[in-house]
Amino acid sequence: MNIALLVAYDGTSFRGFARQPNGRTVQGLLDEALSQLLRVPVKIVGAGRTDAGVHAAGQVVSFDTPSDVDPSWVADRLNRRLGPEISIRGAAVVPDSFSARHSARKRVYEYHLYRTPSRDPFLDRFAVWAPGRLNVGSMRRAAKALIGEHDFSSFCRRSEGSMARRVRSITIRAPSPGTLTIRVTADSFCHQMVRSIVGLLLDIGRGKRAQEDVAKALAARNRAAAGSVAPAKGLTLVEVGYTRSPFTLTG
Amino acid sequence: MNIALLVAYDGTSFRGFARQPNGRTVQGLLDEALSQLLRVPVKIVGAGRTDAGVHAAGQVVSFDTPSDVDPSWVADRLNRRLGPEISIRGAAVVPDSFSARHSARKRVYEYHLYRTPSRDPFLDRFAVWAPGRLNVGSMRRAAKALIGEHDFSSFCRRSEGSMARRVRSITIRAPSPGTLTIRVTADSFCHQMVRSIVGLLLDIGRGKRAQEDVAKALAARNRAAAGSVAPAKGLTLVEVGYTRSPFTLTG
Repeated sequence: MNIALLVAYDGTSFRGFARQPNGRTVQGLLDEALSQLLRVPVKIVGAGRTDAGVHAAGQVVSFDTPSDVDPSWVADRLNRRLGPEISIRGAAVVPDSFSARHSARKRVYEYHLYRTPSRDPFLDRFAVWAPGRLNVGSMRRAAKALIGEHDFSSFCRRSEGSMARRVRSITIRAPSPGTLTIRVTADSFCHQMVRSIVGLLLDIGRGKRAQEDVAKALAARNRAAAGSVAPAKGLTLVEVGYTRSPFTLTG
Repeated sequence: MNIALLVAYDGTSFRGFARQPNGRTVQGLLDEALSQLLRVPVKIVGAGRTDAGVHAAGQVVSFDTPSDVDPSWVADRLNRRLGPEISIRGAAVVPDSFSARHSARKRVYEYHLYRTPSRDPFLDRFAVWAPGRLNVGSMRRAAKALIGEHDFSSFCRRSEGSMARRVRSITIRAPSPGTLTIRVTADSFCHQMVRSIVGLLLDIGRGKRAQEDVAKALAARNRAAAGSVAPAKGLTLVEVGYTRSPFTLTG
């Protein structure tokens, strides 16, 4: 039986999503909890390999079980075991061919900034303080050059095969006064791609770089051309899209 | 020179506001930072002695300095020293007669609950998860019995002199879907008063206690009559009111 889970987590005290020989990871914790619960070794596959300190509101993972189990029971039991840092927000039986990673058609990340005159202890865990002048109009105009299919080598920390990616949209809005959210949707992302995009857009908003530097960075296909990488804690994986969503949302 | 500061903090890893011989407290940390900055021993006075785990968005503290200093400089330097857990949101020179504690005319606390089907890692630091049915109408009706001047002995953990307090208002609203905020305004509060009020109101909302139990608890003047104390992490001191506000808000 193939099961998919919709997972939210506070990434602050994890060394990222992907399992590691040493260090506390989301995948490691879920593998362990599921293996104990189902009494068979379980290894999950995740849609987004979020980095250390990156959060998720809508990560999707999938795994095989040798025997039939009720996905709601799995979600409920996991939630009792895991504490407030990780929450299972949905669970579903999926076709055997489904892979949380390979079946995903799009990923949506949000980068959260806040711009109050002093740091805000209530926002600072999931957003980055960015005081001072920021030309949001020039950030929006600069972002346009990233839309569509490009070689994102300059925006990828690790090179693994082709760095061609298709960015569907980048929206920059202020959901409440003094905050700024940069939402990036793509079929898939390479390593640190969103944080590199946000870093460059912020440099442009602050007047440290020119709008044209986006196109130049893409053309350079060289990591040094992109520049700043925005801090991990501002980033959240908010949604993973599939041809057919496996979940009926529970909350 | 007498200076007042408007202070926000994430109370999660403090053993409360009030200085203690052992343990990390907000007052202890501010005393130490101010003494180092001004090179004289400084002891602040705070408007609300928040308990361990309780947060503040609008705590007010005041202190004397032997020589003149620019309050904005103090705020800025403190913010550089203190990191994201504590933030100085405003600073002002106040009359010598001003005391953050004794001049305060009202305190406003908010208790934050959230009610999604599963725990939410993004809300769980500053709010308490309260799933299941909750009759908000009966909570609102029950709260009315607390308005006005009463002997709140049943709602006070420690008895220090008179437990007579005047509650100005209690409002219960849902600022966004799946959340609930209980806002309590009073001239002053005794120890654990808001958390005891919220605990009883939640018991009433869940149908475990009757609406009439509020009046009975007040009349009993006995700690056992109130019942549950809601967890500290849901509580935030949001505002302290003075005859004349010392601050021009900076953010």
